[in-house]
Order: sequence, then C-alpha cells, then structure tokens
Amino acid sequence: MARLRAHNIAVSLDGFGTGEGQSLEAPFGHAGQRLMGWFFPTATFQGMIGNGSAAGGAGTGGVDDAFASAWSRGIGAEIMGRNKFAPLDRPWPDLDWQGWWGDEPPFRTPVIVLTHTPRPDLVVGGTTFLFRDASPQEALAEATELAGGLDVRLGGGPTTVREFLAADLVDHLHVVVSPIVLGRGVRLWDGLEGLEERFDLETTASPSGVVHHVFTRRT
Amino acid sequence: MARLRAHNIAVSLDGFGTGEGQSLEAPFGHAGQRLMGWFFPTATFQGMIGNGSAAGGAGTGGVDDAFASAWSRGIGAEIMGRNKFAPLDRPWPDLDWQGWWGDEPPFRTPVIVLTHTPRPDLVVGGTTFLFRDASPQEALAEATELAGGLDVRLGGGPTTVREFLAADLVDHLHVVVSPIVLGRGVRLWDGLEGLEERFDLETTASPSGVVHHVFTRRT
Repeated sequence: MARLRAHNIAVSLDGFGTGEGQSLEAPFGHAGQRLMGWFFPTATFQGMIGNGSAAGGAGTGGVDDAFASAWSRGIGAEIMGRNKFAPLDRPWPDLDWQGWWGDEPPFRTPVIVLTHTPRPDLVVGGTTFLFRDASPQEALAEATELAGGLDVRLGGGPTTVREFLAADLVDHLHVVVSPIVLGRGVRLWDGLEGLEERFDLETTASPSGVVHHVFTRRT
Repeated sequence: MARLRAHNIAVSLDGFGTGEGQSLEAPFGHAGQRLMGWFFPTATFQGMIGNGSAAGGAGTGGVDDAFASAWSRGIGAEIMGRNKFAPLDRPWPDLDWQGWWGDEPPFRTPVIVLTHTPRPDLVVGGTTFLFRDASPQEALAEATELAGGLDVRLGGGPTTVREFLAADLVDHLHVVVSPIVLGRGVRLWDGLEGLEERFDLETTASPSGVVHHVFTRRT
C-alpha cells in the first residue's frame, strides 16, 4: 500500500515552519537559512546540488544525513504547496519562473503544486510540475495514480503539511526542530490538537543541535 | 555570583506550557497530567511526595531523573507566578488555600509569589510564601537577598518564565518538550524571537519520549 510521507519538515522551537515575509529572494522569510542550516552540510543536500554522488563525495554522513537521505527512497510523486514553488501573489505574474531548482530539479517525478490559480504544466529536466486546484484528498488520489505503486512525498510548506495532517492523510512525518525562536511566520502545529494519538513518535537529538521527530501512523 | 535558574519547565510540541481552563481541580487545564508525565516516575518526584529518599528508594534514576534532580541543588529562594500557587480569580477568594503541596511543600525556602493582589505572608512547614506585586527585576532583587548567596529558582508557570526571559534575567533554563500537541493554552515562547542568540543550547532526547533542552546564558 502506497504511503504519504513528509520528510525534512523544518520548524523552529516555537513551531514556525517558515518565517514572515516570504519572497523569491527570501523563501523562508525572515528565518533566512536558519531552519535548514542542519541540512546544507549533509551528503544528501550536497548531492542535490551536484557535489559528490550517492556513492560518495562531499557532505556529512552522520545522523542528520541518515534522516535526510530517506527523502528520495521509493518516491513516485510529490505534492507541494504553491509557496514552495513560488511565494508570489496570484495570478502568477511570471510564467517564466520555473522554481528554485535550476535546469534539473531534484524531484525527477511528477510534482503536483496546489494552487487556486492553475497554470499550464511545466516540464523542467526530469520533473513535471502539475498545477492543481484540488482538495488534499483529490491531490493525493492523483499523486498516488502518478506514483505507480511507489509512495507519495508531501513536500511542504507548513500550511500544506498541516492541511494533510488535519485530513489524516499522512502516514510518515519527519519534523526537524531547529534550536531557534522565530517569533513569527507560519505555524506547523496549529489546529492539530491531539495529533499524537494517531501516531507513534520517536525523537533523536543530533549533535548539530536539531531534534529529529519521526511520526509513524498507527495501524 | 548567584544565578536565576528555571528547571523542569514543561511544554508541548506546539509550545504550550499549560493547557486551557486552569482550575484548582486541573492545575494544567485540559493538558491534565500529560505535560508532567515524564516527571512523575522519577526518583526526584517520588522523593518530593514522600516515597523513598535522596539516598535511595522509589522512582527511576535515568536521564529524566538526572535532569529533574538538578531542581533543588544550591537553591536559596524561588519566584513563582500566581497561577502556580493557585489559578483563582483575584482578589483571593479563599485565604485558607495553602497551595497544592500539603503540610510540607518541597521548596523549604522563601518563595515569592508574584501577584497584583498581595495577601499576608504564609508559612507552611519549612516554606514561607511572600506575595508581592513586583516587577521581575524587583522580585529577583528580593529573592537574591533572601537566598543568601545561593541561586534563585524561577518556578514557572510559562507566563512568568516568559516575562523573566524577555527581561534577560535568566541564567539557566531547562525546558522539557513532551510529544503532545495541546492546541491551546499558554505559550512559553511568544515574544522571545532571537532568544537563542543569548544562550548556548544542548538537547537530549530521553527514551521516555521527551526532549530536554538546557539553555545556558552566554557570558
């Protein structure tokens, strides 16, 4: 049975998944790079940006990478929120924008971008972005079909993860708490009272200072 | 130099230090005992309620107890918020209320209770409660004098801890994050953006499921 999995979802100690003031220049708003600081040194991220390879090369291989690397295994499609693709006002002011990821985005699967203002499909390298005005259930149904028996990744941001958690559609959730107090932005946990009753949770503190939380849905 | 230390400050994953609806029957509101569930099995807590002793007896001695036990070492006075003493409307409806702690509260030092409606000093066993309408700075000055060279404990609840953190008066902060999503209540972290810049932080995940965070003020 294909699962819906969210990986490397970063939040601050006070529960913000992104800061205030998101823009093309500042995808995490005033949080800057602080929420993902643990991720950049990992071999997983270094491989994404073309340094080294899965077989070896640049980047750390400790516990942060061990968690980060689960991101791509067995995934056949992704669902992301519109602000992960581009934090722009709608309707889309710039159809030339192809995301943050250059000529070869790391997804290399179909990616459903949830938006109330759809635009034409977009092929970039091995990734096809499909813009859909759909409920979480509808998006998951299409992504599951596209994934062809593999799992579907829920790619964020925090609003999207929260909506799918509220709809009880998430099987695996990996949240990384960074030791910073952001004070403002978009909260991940709002409206999810009692979430723990639906999941088993394991926590691992990393020497880097972050804490990995893995939620596994109870069967 | 005497320090101000806060220990065993419990919060949920979403940052609530107490639930909604606090009362004499439900000191943590709808959170019930869930925020302190990690604490009750420890030898430290079992000793507080008269089971066993510091030299041995009931209770666990693992990492949760190792952190919990730091609570009493070298402390000469405590400061607590009014709702830790009694979550009652003001003025005090019931001067017979002597706190939750029975004939021998575990403090055994002077305890300053911050309140806008002072009442007479109250001696219970080895503890004297002093009710003060004071700023954080004023309360700390008096507590430091009372502590006679020992440290002062900041006893909570979350509003009180937050106010002293905002005033940059806290030297040591031990926060225990429980793996629950409370959804509502009193937030610990609000208004503390950038707190991490003033502290070194170490995190330890416990097999019990909680994560201990120790903030040490940078010198």
